[in-house]
Amino acid sequence: MYRTHTCGQLRLENVNEKVCLSGWVQKIRNLGAMSFIDLRDRYGITQLVVEESATAEIKDKAARLGREFVIQVNGKVVERASKNAKIPTGDIEIWIDTLDILSHSEIPPFTIEDNSDGGDELRMKYRYLDLRRSIVRKNLELRHQMAHLVRNHLDNEHFMEVETPVLIKSTPEGARDFVVPSRMNQGQFYALPQSPQTFKQLLMVAGFDRYYQIVKCFRDEDLRADRQPEFTQIDCEMSFVERDDVLNIFEGMMRHLFKELKGVDIPELPRMTWHDAMEYYGCDKPDIRFGMKFVNLTDNARNRDFAVFNDAEYVGAICVPGCAVYTRKQLDELTEFVKRPQIGAKGLVYVRYNEDGSLKSSVDKFYTPEDLKNWAEICQAKPGDLLLLLCGPKNKTLPQLSELRLEMGERLGLRDKNVFKPLWVVDFPLLEWDEETQRFYAMHHPFTSPHPEDVDMMESNPGAVRANAYDMVINGVEVGGGSIRIHNTELQSRMFKCLGFTPEQAQKQFGFLLNAFKYGAPPHGGIAFGFDRLVSIFAGLDSIRDTIAFPKNNSGRDVMIDSPSEISDEQFKELGIELKL
Amino acid sequence: MYRTHTCGQLRLENVNEKVCLSGWVQKIRNLGAMSFIDLRDRYGITQLVVEESATAEIKDKAARLGREFVIQVNGKVVERASKNAKIPTGDIEIWIDTLDILSHSEIPPFTIEDNSDGGDELRMKYRYLDLRRSIVRKNLELRHQMAHLVRNHLDNEHFMEVETPVLIKSTPEGARDFVVPSRMNQGQFYALPQSPQTFKQLLMVAGFDRYYQIVKCFRDEDLRADRQPEFTQIDCEMSFVERDDVLNIFEGMMRHLFKELKGVDIPELPRMTWHDAMEYYGCDKPDIRFGMKFVNLTDNARNRDFAVFNDAEYVGAICVPGCAVYTRKQLDELTEFVKRPQIGAKGLVYVRYNEDGSLKSSVDKFYTPEDLKNWAEICQAKPGDLLLLLCGPKNKTLPQLSELRLEMGERLGLRDKNVFKPLWVVDFPLLEWDEETQRFYAMHHPFTSPHPEDVDMMESNPGAVRANAYDMVINGVEVGGGSIRIHNTELQSRMFKCLGFTPEQAQKQFGFLLNAFKYGAPPHGGIAFGFDRLVSIFAGLDSIRDTIAFPKNNSGRDVMIDSPSEISDEQFKELGIELKL
Repeated sequence: MYRTHTCGQLRLENVNEKVCLSGWVQKIRNLGAMSFIDLRDRYGITQLVVEESATAEIKDKAARLGREFVIQVNGKVVERASKNAKIPTGDIEIWIDTLDILSHSEIPPFTIEDNSDGGDELRMKYRYLDLRRSIVRKNLELRHQMAHLVRNHLDNEHFMEVETPVLIKSTPEGARDFVVPSRMNQGQFYALPQSPQTFKQLLMVAGFDRYYQIVKCFRDEDLRADRQPEFTQIDCEMSFVERDDVLNIFEGMMRHLFKELKGVDIPELPRMTWHDAMEYYGCDKPDIRFGMKFVNLTDNARNRDFAVFNDAEYVGAICVPGCAVYTRKQLDELTEFVKRPQIGAKGLVYVRYNEDGSLKSSVDKFYTPEDLKNWAEICQAKPGDLLLLLCGPKNKTLPQLSELRLEMGERLGLRDKNVFKPLWVVDFPLLEWDEETQRFYAMHHPFTSPHPEDVDMMESNPGAVRANAYDMVINGVEVGGGSIRIHNTELQSRMFKCLGFTPEQAQKQFGFLLNAFKYGAPPHGGIAFGFDRLVSIFAGLDSIRDTIAFPKNNSGRDVMIDSPSEISDEQFKELGIELKL
Repeated sequence: MYRTHTCGQLRLENVNEKVCLSGWVQKIRNLGAMSFIDLRDRYGITQLVVEESATAEIKDKAARLGREFVIQVNGKVVERASKNAKIPTGDIEIWIDTLDILSHSEIPPFTIEDNSDGGDELRMKYRYLDLRRSIVRKNLELRHQMAHLVRNHLDNEHFMEVETPVLIKSTPEGARDFVVPSRMNQGQFYALPQSPQTFKQLLMVAGFDRYYQIVKCFRDEDLRADRQPEFTQIDCEMSFVERDDVLNIFEGMMRHLFKELKGVDIPELPRMTWHDAMEYYGCDKPDIRFGMKFVNLTDNARNRDFAVFNDAEYVGAICVPGCAVYTRKQLDELTEFVKRPQIGAKGLVYVRYNEDGSLKSSVDKFYTPEDLKNWAEICQAKPGDLLLLLCGPKNKTLPQLSELRLEMGERLGLRDKNVFKPLWVVDFPLLEWDEETQRFYAMHHPFTSPHPEDVDMMESNPGAVRANAYDMVINGVEVGGGSIRIHNTELQSRMFKCLGFTPEQAQKQFGFLLNAFKYGAPPHGGIAFGFDRLVSIFAGLDSIRDTIAFPKNNSGRDVMIDSPSEISDEQFKELGIELKL
């Protein structure tokens, strides 16, 4: 037996017990006659003591220990003279009777403590050591807990977990697939799923009624800072539901998670239309932890001789509370911020609404104090506030103003990671026009149902048709999205027509799903949550990487196992492929 | 709203309630003035009634219904005149007020009832319809329940669920990998995992202490009747454990599953050594639902003039209860059975121990009645029993006798699918000698620890070293297997030497794990269960295929989605590969 207790378990009530512990040497303090060892495992840290009266053998072994050695000790639980209130085992220590070294350790390439001296690449290469740091392990523990809570919650709601296949079929629409050459069917390939979308719809056709799965998905995309080629979804689908049935179930799930994991009671989630999200926040995933909603000043700003505004399609403002005191330098900084190529604004107009009631702006030449006062009133500004205005083509200015709003939220400390403001964004457009190919694309996917009120416009004004689709957004991050699906072959045909598919093309790409719909498809809809992302928000992380045990780097490489790698000639031959670089 | 209740929910206490139901038309009986519709969903079947007094519109709609139409009805719950005790809703029916057709259905390609007229291929092609059959869906429901119970049980035991990567690295040892060409690292490939073995060991090195995952694994093997290229494991690993710690935990899990899912109390699992399993059952996965243990008659059979026995290395018998009455024809059949090429015995010797105490054998010419009596006594045969003897080289005869034993168990109805007899088989050999390559191979994998008592023989007599490995066997099927792993670099080097690896080869193939072991590896061990297999045993299925929602056929094809399939020139180009058939 390697242990009677874990390193996080012993308390004052165990004093005088003979115990056996195993774990890693976190730290050793040698005080001459005595030495202290912090023994660590997943559950905590317990202090071991090699007393002055210990045997020479034990003292000798203790002297040879280094950080990260794995040891086993037998000893007695003793109340500490000087207690450590910072750790749950801090009231006691173990006086060692025997000490065995189970494994040696070389000196680790970085310190295994919360503040490590290891750089990113080094910690990725030695990920198994990085995972020993409690700050990293805690994220994985949270992930485990969240998965467990999600499963139990959905099981209670009669969702059935069904595993869908990983070796599926490549489809030309959407993002790039990873493919897998088939040896038994040479010249043919499987693809790894970007999502189990069609399979979960088939499960609805099969009458499974409520399906869920926490499932790996794959996308062969050029990786941006926070993307992984393999990622995990909480994937769900329900039959005989309308939009609000889906929203209510998953709003319930999310409130349950916040309550259990963060101890937070989340009120009913606001539902914001996509149109309002764009109009008032300039993006489809608004961060509503703070205000500064956009105010459309177009009509009120184009009434004087200021050509910049007069020529603009749109003039929008945000009212930044308490920032009238911003210096010229600070305002110049903001101007530089919005003019950065990633944002691309031409310039920034400000209006200081001073505490004394006076107004001072960068466009005083063109506008009277009454004009400015009028703007301030429309923006519901109070003395001490600062108005910031951007202008230009509306579809460009809205996202620019969004970036500025988020920056101001950041500067004012209004984006607290411990505050959670989830909401639903609903009524997305069904279709997106692509200038290059001169056709509409499905904003979500071709099986998303149009909004019931807009079906009649599918032919006459397809660009204006809303989708019966919804996203859940938390603190400016889209954590999940879904839709009510089309379950009716006739409506599906009209959708394909909108997308410019011939019936033959539709059949070729989605034949098995269309065929399934011929045999009695129930009305159905669902949602998928990005599980990595959800964990990162609950953990207060900026990146999803530390929510994943063994992540890949930005080139899609696992630097720990050194993958991808070359394969043998034998493998090429068996698969019937060769390189052509 | 599509429904107030499911089709499995309504009872007598709901009589007179106005309800709304949705589901599939299972059956329609038109009795002229009235008609009856069986409405089906995942939860059950409810009888709907179109009364004589129904409106013409409803009658008209009902007349147009066909099997598998999806409909929604509003109506009143009424107590049935003639109740149906076979279904939970059989006391009531719904008198329809309104009827809406939500989806039409073409005539399904096979009948959607427990006894379907659809052949295998047809049902695979229309798997979404096959899954509507309650007999098929129930297997998936059982799978869901089992996964749920496993997760909750392991969570209670402090196992952490950790997702290991799917895009990993190809390793030359073991079965064939599926590989995935990398677009971002052209010329290089990921591999899909055959198991998360190395990652779970790394998680132990990382201090995760107890890990589990219900996880897809992949093996590109030529598919036998009951193999799938993707399959699911319950994969587990524990730190600071010895063999019995692992056995106790997972024996507990299995007992929990039997109790919850089958209502069966399973007693403590017997532990049988691999040696005994081979000696007494002729295989490493004995079916212990019945006796007929092998009796070694070699010494007692080689004492007369029967050259066949005298030349044989081994003569073994089973005692088949109550079969002395077997006719010559039946015995000839058994002889044919053991002589089939798949089994390969040269012949069969029988001894009838008649009810009157007389003995009659096929070798009466060579043996006296006393000889036969002696055999019968050694075999603990009773009057009425039949002895069956096979002989030959021991390593060939044992498996032949095993097949014969299983066949006799089958004929005597001793292999009842509702009886469950799990056991542990322990102390497997560590190494297997391969004649062709003239080297030892790891029977399990190169990280399996030798039995603590046998470590000293690793160099002097490697073939005799037992592994600290174990399998769980239920009813003659291996459902899980694992081992205590090597965690010590010195022992690992000796193991690699046994396998004929140079240090360089070991480093190249398993370098990242060996490196990890340098930084303090805890003693650890684990197990993996074949989840599909486990479900099939609990469901009483012969094949794993119906435990999988969307299985592949014996050529690795998904005939429903028609995969694998060709990919585009664009995809070949991006991946830097081309076909070479």
